[in-house]
Amino acid sequence: MMCSAGSAAAHPDCLFCKIVAGDIPSDQVYTDDAVVAFRDIAPQAPVHVLVVPRRHVSGIDDLRDEPELAGRLLAAAAKVARIEGVHEAGYRVAVNHGRHGAQSVGHVHLHVLGGRQLHGELG
Amino acid sequence: MMCSAGSAAAHPDCLFCKIVAGDIPSDQVYTDDAVVAFRDIAPQAPVHVLVVPRRHVSGIDDLRDEPELAGRLLAAAAKVARIEGVHEAGYRVAVNHGRHGAQSVGHVHLHVLGGRQLHGELG
Repeated sequence: MMCSAGSAAAHPDCLFCKIVAGDIPSDQVYTDDAVVAFRDIAPQAPVHVLVVPRRHVSGIDDLRDEPELAGRLLAAAAKVARIEGVHEAGYRVAVNHGRHGAQSVGHVHLHVLGGRQLHGELG
Repeated sequence: MMCSAGSAAAHPDCLFCKIVAGDIPSDQVYTDDAVVAFRDIAPQAPVHVLVVPRRHVSGIDDLRDEPELAGRLLAAAAKVARIEGVHEAGYRVAVNHGRHGAQSVGHVHLHVLGGRQLHGELG
């Protein structure tokens, strides 16, 4: 599939597609034509925001041939950190893929965590 | 600074610039015109690869306005996971920024971790 940042291809049973569509409410902190960012409902840190593409993409593995969309997501994560005011103290961006990665929702999402000292163990 | 994926702008005291230049040896698993990926010398998992831009970029905060390079990095991380054979079982990609993020080297790098079950705590 070509990278078409704003195209709609919602999956009917996808939690994040429903959030993107506004069918499930979320606490949004940033949106653009390709991306929606909203607070995680089970935050692991004072700042814990999820950045998702508007279009349904199952996981980061599907972004191998979509550097345009991948870049929009990663740049948006850095923008979110600025919006949340954690860019000077520092933060972490994490993407889980599949079972070993502990991916919880099958719509790719970047975690942005900050607001406290994060430990150096990455998994 | 504009995104010029392959341009050289090495910092003389940067460890990863020296690795990119080949002045310090590394166990490389993937390279292209924008990116070099090599094994972490202190791996936290059976697969632990770092993906860095050839050009010196201090941190992910500097990628806010460089979605092209950000995309090349994230797509390369997914390619590395395929090369390492962890794409089916799953993996994690993490980017640390600044003190709270526990960033260890001031040249932006994406960690790709896999080869075992990673825990769900992200920091």
